[in-house]
Amino acid sequence: MLSRRHVSDPLPPDPNSIIQPHTTIIVGLSGGPDSVCLLHVLCSQKKELNLQIIAAHLDHEWQESSKIAAELCKNMCNNLGVDLVIKKLSELEFDVKWNGSQEEVGRLMRRHFFQSVAQQYQAHAIALAHHEQDQHETFFIRLLRGSSLKGLTGIQKKDGLYIRPLLHWSKNQIMQYLHENNLNYYTDQTNTSDAYLRNRIRNHVIPALHATDNRFEKNLTSTMSQLSLAHDFIEQQTCKIMQTMTTPQGINIALFLDTHTVAQQNILLRLLIMCGISFTPSQKLFNEIMRFLKKSSKNKHTLYQNCLIKKDKNYFSIEKLIKIDKNL
Amino acid sequence: MLSRRHVSDPLPPDPNSIIQPHTTIIVGLSGGPDSVCLLHVLCSQKKELNLQIIAAHLDHEWQESSKIAAELCKNMCNNLGVDLVIKKLSELEFDVKWNGSQEEVGRLMRRHFFQSVAQQYQAHAIALAHHEQDQHETFFIRLLRGSSLKGLTGIQKKDGLYIRPLLHWSKNQIMQYLHENNLNYYTDQTNTSDAYLRNRIRNHVIPALHATDNRFEKNLTSTMSQLSLAHDFIEQQTCKIMQTMTTPQGINIALFLDTHTVAQQNILLRLLIMCGISFTPSQKLFNEIMRFLKKSSKNKHTLYQNCLIKKDKNYFSIEKLIKIDKNL
Repeated sequence: MLSRRHVSDPLPPDPNSIIQPHTTIIVGLSGGPDSVCLLHVLCSQKKELNLQIIAAHLDHEWQESSKIAAELCKNMCNNLGVDLVIKKLSELEFDVKWNGSQEEVGRLMRRHFFQSVAQQYQAHAIALAHHEQDQHETFFIRLLRGSSLKGLTGIQKKDGLYIRPLLHWSKNQIMQYLHENNLNYYTDQTNTSDAYLRNRIRNHVIPALHATDNRFEKNLTSTMSQLSLAHDFIEQQTCKIMQTMTTPQGINIALFLDTHTVAQQNILLRLLIMCGISFTPSQKLFNEIMRFLKKSSKNKHTLYQNCLIKKDKNYFSIEKLIKIDKNL
Repeated sequence: MLSRRHVSDPLPPDPNSIIQPHTTIIVGLSGGPDSVCLLHVLCSQKKELNLQIIAAHLDHEWQESSKIAAELCKNMCNNLGVDLVIKKLSELEFDVKWNGSQEEVGRLMRRHFFQSVAQQYQAHAIALAHHEQDQHETFFIRLLRGSSLKGLTGIQKKDGLYIRPLLHWSKNQIMQYLHENNLNYYTDQTNTSDAYLRNRIRNHVIPALHATDNRFEKNLTSTMSQLSLAHDFIEQQTCKIMQTMTTPQGINIALFLDTHTVAQQNILLRLLIMCGISFTPSQKLFNEIMRFLKKSSKNKHTLYQNCLIKKDKNYFSIEKLIKIDKNL
């Protein structure tokens, strides 16, 4: 069971100290309740932890009213004495080739923007305002789409540059903090629309579960914590198993084929990530690689046009194909 | 993704062959659609697999109408030429000391009855009619209550004497089978009442998820299959780790304390089960044992009044305390 904080504490209890002293932190600020709370919580620790805080606001320009949010962010940062970087979506140098939902494109754009601000300020972390309800909604989004164990462990508190200091705060705690500190925020109207999967979960699925058993939120947090632990153990064991079959010539095929499917899948994922290959983990991809390793008489197989799997009698390896631009 | 069958096949595809030829199988028969379908499906395989099939019906006597179900079972078994054992709840020699719900007590009573019939006929298996929707409901029951990874893997297709040949059938497939074969069944009115947690999940939670994304059922089955695989890997790894620390003097404490929490929890569960100790796995129980192993200066600790953990400097072991009846 993850611990919960009292609203009067300036920061949530954080055993792994995701907020390090003497660091520069970019805060993703939409102007909504969650990010307004996050910015104030971090500012309340600014002196004590010697933090440099920079707020970053991306104006999506999807609605006229988004100007109001940008204005609110300006005033707030001005009052707090915090630097604010604002950019309009149309000003962003980012080529979207993504076929996902508008919501997903928005997320990718924000990430691109935050990362460019982080680079500009040589920041140590980008703080996002995800909280316990976001975590629960993510669980159900992944459950509805079909998920691995890892998917059900939800959003991570720390994931590369990104940190999520409010991940254990409930929405109620955030609203209470805003109320007690008399803070203004902006409410995005698209947030309540059933057009988005996340909102359908928030508006229909979570209330149905809560009505069925009102301890549901507490128990889901506890379950997700147990799943995280199980996933962590699997990662640890996979790492050990991988070491036993790794040689300078590559992965020992006989040992690889003799190990558990879960370890095989995790080892292949690790190899693909280590090579810097972009891919979507799927059963189809796993089956394709296994077919090649088990049956194919060929000694090379290409995946995604940029990934080469090579094997000889005893070993296999994965490498990224680098395309050479003939115009150069 | 688990495979699905066509209704016209006499049996669901079953890679692990849970129905063994030349065996005696007790079929739990309530008279409801699921168990009527199961009985007929098994009877259709009777000759080919040389099965001896005995139906077992427990009359719960909770409602006057339960007599109708008993009568329906009698007629059906008579027509099929299947032996039927009927018992009334009041005739059962079973001392209930369970504080759970009426539903849970009913389940325990049925299990006791089926096991006594299995013993009487020296049966090899007890077949129950759980199907895919039961599996999904079980997932949410456990999620609502807070669950380990194992809990979320759901009901097992084979679990000791119990087998569940319809576990991959959807409710629709069962209803279609009954319709195509012109079979009568009894509908239990309590099955639709919101008084039971399972029914609240069936009537409110599942429809909300289905309305959010109609691929939900298919994807949940796929997710549960992935969780089962992950759980299986954890069991395999735990077993290997346990072997490395087991000696004739007991479990090596230093090695045990040095291993991952998930392995520690699983090893303790295995030790308790191996000793035949009845317990409810909980974080509290785990913490109590860990506190004793890590900190206590004592060399003995009693759990549940019938379980003794002993330790010396290097090793620990768990044993069941056997109470001696002084009147004997």
